[in-house]
Amino acid sequence: MKVSSGSLRQQFPDGVFPEGCPSRTLLDHITSKWGVLVLLSLADSEPLRWSELRRRAQGVSEKMLAQTLRTLADDDLVVRTAHPVVPPHVEYALTDRGRELAGLLTPLMTWVAINADEVIVAESA
Amino acid sequence: MKVSSGSLRQQFPDGVFPEGCPSRTLLDHITSKWGVLVLLSLADSEPLRWSELRRRAQGVSEKMLAQTLRTLADDDLVVRTAHPVVPPHVEYALTDRGRELAGLLTPLMTWVAINADEVIVAESA
Repeated sequence: MKVSSGSLRQQFPDGVFPEGCPSRTLLDHITSKWGVLVLLSLADSEPLRWSELRRRAQGVSEKMLAQTLRTLADDDLVVRTAHPVVPPHVEYALTDRGRELAGLLTPLMTWVAINADEVIVAESA
Repeated sequence: MKVSSGSLRQQFPDGVFPEGCPSRTLLDHITSKWGVLVLLSLADSEPLRWSELRRRAQGVSEKMLAQTLRTLADDDLVVRTAHPVVPPHVEYALTDRGRELAGLLTPLMTWVAINADEVIVAESA
């Protein structure tokens, strides 16, 4: 899909991001503390199990990971697959929509990683 | 600056986003509820005054806007200019670094705006 800064002006012509609109809700979900890390963990990856997601999004609690995955699944960004084996084998992966989003989050996170040392480390020096 | 998904793997080779690292701190700042809206409000815009920022990031409180602008200024993303006139005239604008970041956030927000109706409105229907 093509996204240009022109279309942002089309969507928000007066520059206002209105409270309570669907865009604000979706933005909150994907930029939530754990939402963005879960999406990035699943980008360019095979489907991941719960334990691997917890390892990658370091610091996430069981409760917050469950809640984040439920929200992202409701938003059609992540899909949960339960393989009918013993013991149960559950995997999480991006949907097509989630993969499209991850393609926009990945350069953002790369920029963050490149700039963080200059910005954050300099502040605390 | 060139940012590719390859460099994300270079930055986080084992796929883990470590807690407490500078990248996580900067990511939290720019994806905070108001951080992202303030950055987007200033993208493709002339410098903005306090009242205009409050209007665009609809719902932000005085306190949260002040705190958000202080964090973004500390991170070298936003610059505050006080013009020595009576009454005082203060403006906020993106720095070069902030403009670079806004170039990555704008397509993200456009994607959100395009997808929000399908995702969020469908859920609440």
